[in-house]
Amino acid sequence: MSTPLRLGIAGLGTVGIGVVKIVQTHAALLARRAGRPVEIVAVSANSRSKNRGADISAYGWEDDPVQLARREDVDVVVELIGGENGVAKALVETALKSGKDVVTANKALLAKHGTALARLAEEKGRSLRFEAAVAGGIPVIKALTEGLAGNQIKRVMGVMNGTCNYILTRMESAGLPYDAVFEEARKLGYLEADPNLDVGGIDAGHKLSLLSAIAFGTEVDFDNVVLQGIGSVSTADIRLARDMGYSIKLLGVAQMTGRGLEQRMTPCLVPETHPLGQLQGGTNMVVIEGDMVGQIVLRGAGAGEGPTASAVMGDVIDIARGFRLPVFGQPAADLVAAPPAAVSAGAPWYLRMTLLDKPGALAKIATVLGESGISIARMRQYSHEGTDAPVLIVTHKASSDDIAHALTRFADTGVLVGEPVALRIEEV
Amino acid sequence: MSTPLRLGIAGLGTVGIGVVKIVQTHAALLARRAGRPVEIVAVSANSRSKNRGADISAYGWEDDPVQLARREDVDVVVELIGGENGVAKALVETALKSGKDVVTANKALLAKHGTALARLAEEKGRSLRFEAAVAGGIPVIKALTEGLAGNQIKRVMGVMNGTCNYILTRMESAGLPYDAVFEEARKLGYLEADPNLDVGGIDAGHKLSLLSAIAFGTEVDFDNVVLQGIGSVSTADIRLARDMGYSIKLLGVAQMTGRGLEQRMTPCLVPETHPLGQLQGGTNMVVIEGDMVGQIVLRGAGAGEGPTASAVMGDVIDIARGFRLPVFGQPAADLVAAPPAAVSAGAPWYLRMTLLDKPGALAKIATVLGESGISIARMRQYSHEGTDAPVLIVTHKASSDDIAHALTRFADTGVLVGEPVALRIEEV
Repeated sequence: MSTPLRLGIAGLGTVGIGVVKIVQTHAALLARRAGRPVEIVAVSANSRSKNRGADISAYGWEDDPVQLARREDVDVVVELIGGENGVAKALVETALKSGKDVVTANKALLAKHGTALARLAEEKGRSLRFEAAVAGGIPVIKALTEGLAGNQIKRVMGVMNGTCNYILTRMESAGLPYDAVFEEARKLGYLEADPNLDVGGIDAGHKLSLLSAIAFGTEVDFDNVVLQGIGSVSTADIRLARDMGYSIKLLGVAQMTGRGLEQRMTPCLVPETHPLGQLQGGTNMVVIEGDMVGQIVLRGAGAGEGPTASAVMGDVIDIARGFRLPVFGQPAADLVAAPPAAVSAGAPWYLRMTLLDKPGALAKIATVLGESGISIARMRQYSHEGTDAPVLIVTHKASSDDIAHALTRFADTGVLVGEPVALRIEEV
Repeated sequence: MSTPLRLGIAGLGTVGIGVVKIVQTHAALLARRAGRPVEIVAVSANSRSKNRGADISAYGWEDDPVQLARREDVDVVVELIGGENGVAKALVETALKSGKDVVTANKALLAKHGTALARLAEEKGRSLRFEAAVAGGIPVIKALTEGLAGNQIKRVMGVMNGTCNYILTRMESAGLPYDAVFEEARKLGYLEADPNLDVGGIDAGHKLSLLSAIAFGTEVDFDNVVLQGIGSVSTADIRLARDMGYSIKLLGVAQMTGRGLEQRMTPCLVPETHPLGQLQGGTNMVVIEGDMVGQIVLRGAGAGEGPTASAVMGDVIDIARGFRLPVFGQPAADLVAAPPAAVSAGAPWYLRMTLLDKPGALAKIATVLGESGISIARMRQYSHEGTDAPVLIVTHKASSDDIAHALTRFADTGVLVGEPVALRIEEV
């Protein structure tokens, strides 16, 4: 039991250095918990000489990260390069083929190639672990794959992009418009080089697609995640939603329905009394609903050196302990290709529109809703000056199809000023 | 990989029947996730013929649960009898000695004999798992032992007795006194046969002592958990705390300090903006703080058939997958006997007292506080009629010793009506 577990780390950015620091500062603790020492034998990054706040001089160096996968003295390749193709993919594939275990934080890679990589890992009898790829430091992959494995999972939800949640909560607390807060976030370094990965919901969508595969035993299917970013969320909607007891979150929802697998990453209203509605700033939250356990809520930092490195080390320690399980918690060969649900499950919706101030305007809207099979739960018309009358409607349960149909017909009524806003209210 | 894992279940109460139902209804799912079938081969309970809502006729029967541990066809004994001694202890010991793995929900047994049982299990090379013993369906043992194993744990906190949280939140929402809500809870069947296990904090203290052992690598030391029940919490305190932005919770806190291991299960004030402060009803919450991961919050049902059975099955599936780790996440032989901290870490305190309505009364109290080295952060004197003046004080950080000293000296001032109330404000 005292053979060390030997790591090769590819990528010495924030997370890679976090891992180095844990291995260096917690050596005795790790050995006691893992049952054997955990050592770093080699690293790879862009520049060997760059000052990173951690001494890496004792480790072997590879200019080409893929060489880590070929080293005889490496047991586990820790892939922290990122990117859905290119060197990260080559490294992971080479490592598995060379009989190494792999720990990665790369959600994009797994969202695109997860099923194929899982098959490869299981063929080779190796582990491919990715706790750090979803919701940073929150041990959600472990909870879903292991702790809650006795449950049929009913629904998985999550706020899994801290930048988006920062922007939305800052818009609310400061009353600032999206563009201004987006600029703040950019200056604070909260945004990816391509900000659309964050604010377009892509990064969070990647994460959701991985949770789906585990929860429902399905092939990873990021392409069928319905994505809608937060760019269209207005301070008015945030304020009006709050007035009615809701918060607006970029919420991921995955559930298996009679119509197929539903995966959405869209701005939704959630009750302000639920932990999801109370989530402030860059914190992440994942909600798992199982048939036996009910609702489990997990909350923590979704990014950053310490939290993400903590998740990487959890995976490393599991490997050191000899834990082996299929990549998505069940054999990759058993993952099914579920058809995507064309229509999302029924839910109440928040509709905001501005009506011309003329008699019968509201009646026309109400008629369209009625004819679309949508009934109104609550309505508010706000006092107004001049001609524009802001109207808020919360519907009873309606399908996304019914809502889309009603929105199309609203345009024909001739009483709307501008575009109506329709946001799903997720029942939690 | 297709050898079934064979369970012997001792105790067919709520949780035992929940386990039976999962095994019966989720057979295919469990086999896919565990990599092998999970089967029940034998059970033991008080009466074989009792109608339990699940068909147990296909299973072997033992009148004496300890016989389950001696059956050749049992791989894992699931102990759901309860109680810190007697048959549960005999069963667990016999099972381990007979080379069986054990899954238990028995917090009392482990709080009292956890270190010895862990040693026995590790000597015999067997697993002893207890996810269901702490916070019901929340996979907190797994999170702490595995997912967050890369962290030095700084503090573990939790609301881990749903009945107490139900009583406290109901006192607040309905404005009812403790005795009335206690009676309600008794009628609803929320209380243990000996209610002091719940409202005295003993049950939650058992759970805290198990989390401590994992978090800090210490021997299980329930005897040194500082216990204070909720019987003395008044509706006045709940209301006044809320006025100042706090909720009162029966909060468990464990942390390693320079003065030793601090373990408390006492009514505390927590900010109403923190998830702990927002926790309503019978739900449980555990907060884990690691040096790398920061603060992780886990929330879910703390009791009941489904949630607790879910936790049991998580352990069973881990065993089926061949996962083996020391009972408390590090070898039992390495667990240290930490001295208990005599004085709790400094914290702000909530003090409520009633003063005689005479000149200089408040000055005397303020003088005592000052002389005890306690400074005042906020003070409120409520309007009053007649002679009694309710006064609320929130202090800056003070040790439990300083507070105890001040309370003693208050008595000498001659200006107090009745006993003062002192509750710690846990900084989260």
